[in-house]
Amino acid sequence: MDGTGSAQLIIAELRSGSRRALSKCLSLIESTRAEDRALAYEILEHCSSHTDGSWRIGCTGPPGVGKSTFIERIGMELLARGRRVAVLAVDPSSRRTGGSILGDKVRMPLLSTQSEAFVRPSPSKAMLGGAAPSTRDAIVICEAAGFDTIIIETVGVGQSETDVADLVDMFILLALANSGDDVQGIKRGIMEVADAVVITKSDVDESSVNRSAAILTGALRFMPQAEQDWSVPVMKCSSLTGQGADVVLQSIESFFGASRAERRVGRRRHQRGEWFDRALSAEIIARLTDVDAFRFECERMRHQCVSGLVAPSLAVHRLLGRVNITIKQESP
Amino acid sequence: MDGTGSAQLIIAELRSGSRRALSKCLSLIESTRAEDRALAYEILEHCSSHTDGSWRIGCTGPPGVGKSTFIERIGMELLARGRRVAVLAVDPSSRRTGGSILGDKVRMPLLSTQSEAFVRPSPSKAMLGGAAPSTRDAIVICEAAGFDTIIIETVGVGQSETDVADLVDMFILLALANSGDDVQGIKRGIMEVADAVVITKSDVDESSVNRSAAILTGALRFMPQAEQDWSVPVMKCSSLTGQGADVVLQSIESFFGASRAERRVGRRRHQRGEWFDRALSAEIIARLTDVDAFRFECERMRHQCVSGLVAPSLAVHRLLGRVNITIKQESP
Repeated sequence: MDGTGSAQLIIAELRSGSRRALSKCLSLIESTRAEDRALAYEILEHCSSHTDGSWRIGCTGPPGVGKSTFIERIGMELLARGRRVAVLAVDPSSRRTGGSILGDKVRMPLLSTQSEAFVRPSPSKAMLGGAAPSTRDAIVICEAAGFDTIIIETVGVGQSETDVADLVDMFILLALANSGDDVQGIKRGIMEVADAVVITKSDVDESSVNRSAAILTGALRFMPQAEQDWSVPVMKCSSLTGQGADVVLQSIESFFGASRAERRVGRRRHQRGEWFDRALSAEIIARLTDVDAFRFECERMRHQCVSGLVAPSLAVHRLLGRVNITIKQESP
Repeated sequence: MDGTGSAQLIIAELRSGSRRALSKCLSLIESTRAEDRALAYEILEHCSSHTDGSWRIGCTGPPGVGKSTFIERIGMELLARGRRVAVLAVDPSSRRTGGSILGDKVRMPLLSTQSEAFVRPSPSKAMLGGAAPSTRDAIVICEAAGFDTIIIETVGVGQSETDVADLVDMFILLALANSGDDVQGIKRGIMEVADAVVITKSDVDESSVNRSAAILTGALRFMPQAEQDWSVPVMKCSSLTGQGADVVLQSIESFFGASRAERRVGRRRHQRGEWFDRALSAEIIARLTDVDAFRFECERMRHQCVSGLVAPSLAVHRLLGRVNITIKQESP
């Protein structure tokens, strides 16, 4: 089939609200096949427009904190306020199987069946240069499909959480209260990139929830804030009873208020520059390691570095001694 | 002159303790000239050995916190304990002029004139991929020259501080007490990578120093720690009177104690892997942007990205469409 023709067909369907077209686009973006990538780039070419009015919200927290039920609860509230909600999951451990999609539907049974909502897992590729490069494009695609609220859910593995903060306008950290003098499973660096903190399952043990809220509030007071004109709130929410969800919604609406529009635009500009730099590095490395001989040599040199046998700069120098990079003056 | 011959000569001089050879090696490492780089790599080839017994200490803090006087004070104490101390400065704003070296000598008048110490500024190159890639090699060179304690000083600009944490075994954050309910100028993300916090100029205003110490201790208690078996101490020190320097020294000795040796080795292994990945990305990007046509196009595409005109992945795809990467099967 003619690539250009099929790209324009898919875009038209995407804009008209076709679920099938949306799923197809997201699959193309995640694909590693050359023809899929080519089509994906063509589609992206027609999607990149000014979407500064959309809300991009990230959600993270330790396993068991109840991210899915929280997102379902908040998602339903956002729908009730007239927003169109797409949920993308960044899950480094997931595999693209039928089971994973089924699993996702079971996880958000209410939200995934709403006409104005879309729930999809987006497997993150384990690439040099950070988690889920395809998630950036998936956001753009969802916005082109008319969704004005994109929620990115992350599972609590590795460095992916802080990477997700760089994908969104507002980053919400979910935390679990602990019976001890501590808050469960908060990862290094997360607190400082959070725009809001929500203690989930607030219906379970009220006194430890309150103690955890006080601890977190205290810690945040002496921590540099992500945004100068925004004081990071610590909220409590029960996704089961719905208690506290209204406060979380108010906080989200306030964060996306008109008075903060300029700062939001600035944050997105900065993010886009960062994305470009990372994508450039990741793509070049991907091209190189696509060649078996280079990949084996790269792994061998990296291992020698880690073992302390050779200095990193020397290892890289040797490795790149075999690489020849040329630049065409004009593309045909 | 024959490259191999001059490399072996310099290495011999370096090992025999020649200052001139050390300065020469550090200059070669920082040089961007191809023949200097080639010689630098040859020297590095002979330097990379097991230096797990050395102490690599990073020092950061806001401008005016007194990093130089603190390092001079601590450096003199370390000399008195029989250690050989090299001080490298990561200064993104410095220029390699005679003035910079002179400026540095004036800054640490005591330490720089000691026979067992070496003080040198090491200008950080503004490269994609992080601050001061040459500092990594400078550490290796100083260790080959027989220095067993390397202190890396950073000026408080941009992201360089957290990068420095990745260069060292122990990262010390210097802080200034403030008259308000706050501690001055602590940057985002720094607290969480600090292995020790020192409030400087503790002789000036004792009550605000004590209040700041309490605030920082409180903040650290609810912050994930850099190392699981190490509780980050908050100390007070006056570089003027020397008060508190002994406590700082004890803390350093305890951090480098035998019981923590295994963890230190693990941290270095991890760092070397990170260095390799970053050096690989940075070096490839450097090779590409060395070509004017590519650099201009890269800047143009990045600008389009930042403006929201084109998605980052698409911009990178277009940009790399003109790049041809080939890999030689065997180096000659």
